[in-house]
This record gives sequence, structure tokens and C-alpha cells, in this order.
Amino acid sequence: MDIRLKEQLDFIIEIDKMKNIYRQTILSIDRRRENDAEHSWHIGVMAILLKEYAPENTDIDKVVKMLLIHDLVEVYAGDTFAYGDTSKEEKEEKELKAADKIFGILPEDLNKELRALWDEFEKMETNEAKYAASMDRIQPFILNLVSEGHTWKIGDVRSSQVYERMDIVKEGTPKLWEYVDNAIKESIDKGLIKK
Amino acid sequence: MDIRLKEQLDFIIEIDKMKNIYRQTILSIDRRRENDAEHSWHIGVMAILLKEYAPENTDIDKVVKMLLIHDLVEVYAGDTFAYGDTSKEEKEEKELKAADKIFGILPEDLNKELRALWDEFEKMETNEAKYAASMDRIQPFILNLVSEGHTWKIGDVRSSQVYERMDIVKEGTPKLWEYVDNAIKESIDKGLIKK
Repeated sequence: MDIRLKEQLDFIIEIDKMKNIYRQTILSIDRRRENDAEHSWHIGVMAILLKEYAPENTDIDKVVKMLLIHDLVEVYAGDTFAYGDTSKEEKEEKELKAADKIFGILPEDLNKELRALWDEFEKMETNEAKYAASMDRIQPFILNLVSEGHTWKIGDVRSSQVYERMDIVKEGTPKLWEYVDNAIKESIDKGLIKK
Repeated sequence: MDIRLKEQLDFIIEIDKMKNIYRQTILSIDRRRENDAEHSWHIGVMAILLKEYAPENTDIDKVVKMLLIHDLVEVYAGDTFAYGDTSKEEKEEKELKAADKIFGILPEDLNKELRALWDEFEKMETNEAKYAASMDRIQPFILNLVSEGHTWKIGDVRSSQVYERMDIVKEGTPKLWEYVDNAIKESIDKGLIKK
């Protein structure tokens, strides 16, 4: 087999590990924790469904690709709980190393292509990255709403933390901010999020 | 909340059930069965990685979308084992009903958009549908190779069945046929597939 195809197949097998990286979010049905592969799939579909709420001239196809690969670094870096103790710097350092390692399995051109998508997502500066980040925030937010605030409770989360976490929605999907803001307020009223 | 947004959110929550639809394929690490959400994510990434092997002028972005939604009907129709007893007609009938139901949750324009993608995938006539079908075949094929032929063994599968199942690769990713053909022959030699 030629080396290029072998590297592609090695990568395909390596990323199978995403199915064993468990997040804090739980599913709507059986309350088991969701893994990175499931989460990435769900937000990929959401990006297609909610495209009308993206900023003008957002390249949705690029967003979908970005979302499918945005968590691949967690194969080595693990999932970092949004409301946990890990510092931003610590997370970044681990994930940069992991990005070199995981994308480094690929032939050079594909390494560059996927790495560029991941870098763009992480910087959160373009319309595509902001819309993608909104999907990445809104999906666990919805699962939290249907599971009576599961991760908000285990994280003993205050409303200021949720507002900080969801802030990108104002830019990434501005027309959905009203929905998010109302849902946060209702969750505070219900005692799912601390004031 | 307006009705349109409510329908979109209802759909997002309904398809969470994909994470509980288990296939016969097992993962490379812990031998647990793979679910539809994980499978859909994996082949979405594969479609990006292997695009150089697609037929000329294949719209890869469309393929990725097609793959993310191709199994949604299984929320109601369940997974049909590729090497099981269900007839093609029985599977089609169940899945057509399921397609009406699942895509019917969406606002009309999105219903049409996703349904058109699913119909195209099912007909397997366009370059996009053929390349997508190849990803859908090659992914469990690879997981079978790394799990010592798990689904081939439980299905007591003969080589003619594997060749029939993998036949679309000749058209969908012609440059990968040699790899697939060699891997089938090796698996027959190893006794993982019956002659």
C-alpha cells in the first residue's frame, strides 16, 4: 500500500478514539454522558439546520468541516469541562501539543488543511469560527435544558459563568441570543443556575 | 418563541436519539458497538480526508452534509444489519415512512432540503451519492479489519456477500478498489470471511 493512503487510514483508525472521550453533558434519553464523536456530529447537523441565523456571508460548508474536526485534539488532550478548574493557558498548551500530534499523522497537505481549520476555530475571529463556536455552545446548552441543568448542577455554576460561556452567541448567531437569554433567565428562576 | 425556531429545536432534540441506535460494528478500542451518531461523524471526516479518491467533479461539501443526515431515518426505522435477514423492500418501506416522520418535524423548506439530500443518497446515482456510499461501506470495513472481522463472523458472511456490499467502491472511489480487494482476499485467507 502506498504511504499516503496508509497515513490516511492510520488517521481514520486513530480518530476512532473520539468515541471514547466522554464529555460532562448527558444525553436527552438515558442520561449517559455524551462523547466527542456524537457531539461533533450533532453540531455539524445543527450548523446546517440553523444557517439562517449565521452572520451574513458565512461559509456554512466550511463551518461544518470545522465542527467535525474541532475536537480531534481531545484524543490526546482529553475533554476540558467548560465549568471546571483547568486554566485557559493550561488547556491551550495541552491542545496545541495534541494538534501537532494528531494532524501530524496525516500527509503534509491534509495536515495543513485540517490544522488551518482548527486554528481558525480556536481563534474565533472569522464569521465561520464565531458561528461554529455558537453551535458548540448551544448544543450542550439545549441538552442542559432538557436534562434539568445537569452540567450546571455538577459545576455548581453561577449565571455569570453561563453568560460568559454563551457570550459568543451574540456575534455568532445574533438572532438566537433572545432565545438563549430567555432560557438562561428561566433556568435561574427554576434554580438550575445560581444567581 | 416563534414556531419556526421551535420546530428546529424539536428536531435537534429528536435526533439526539441517534446516539442510542446501535450498529453491529464494534469500535477499535473497547469492542463496544458503535452508534449511528458516531458512525455518521466518522464518515463525514473520512469524506474530507479521502476526497482525492472521489470521482472528478464531486461536490465534497454536499457529500459531507449527505453523510451527516443519511442515517436519521433510523431514529424510527432502527439499524438494519448489512448481513442480516431483512429484505431490501422491507427496509425501504420502513425507512420511507421514517423519512416522512423525521424530516416532517422541520419547517417545510428545511424538510425539502434534507429530504432531497437523503433521497439522492438512497438512489445512489450521482457522483456525490456514490462517493458517500463508499464512505458508508469503507468505514465499517476498516473497523472490521481492526476487530478481526467482527461483523463478518457474527453474520457468518461469505466472500460473495462482502464483494456485493463493497461493489459501489469501484464507482464511488475507484482508486481505493485495489486496497479493498486486497483486504478482502487477505481476510478470506485469514478465515475472517468464508470463501
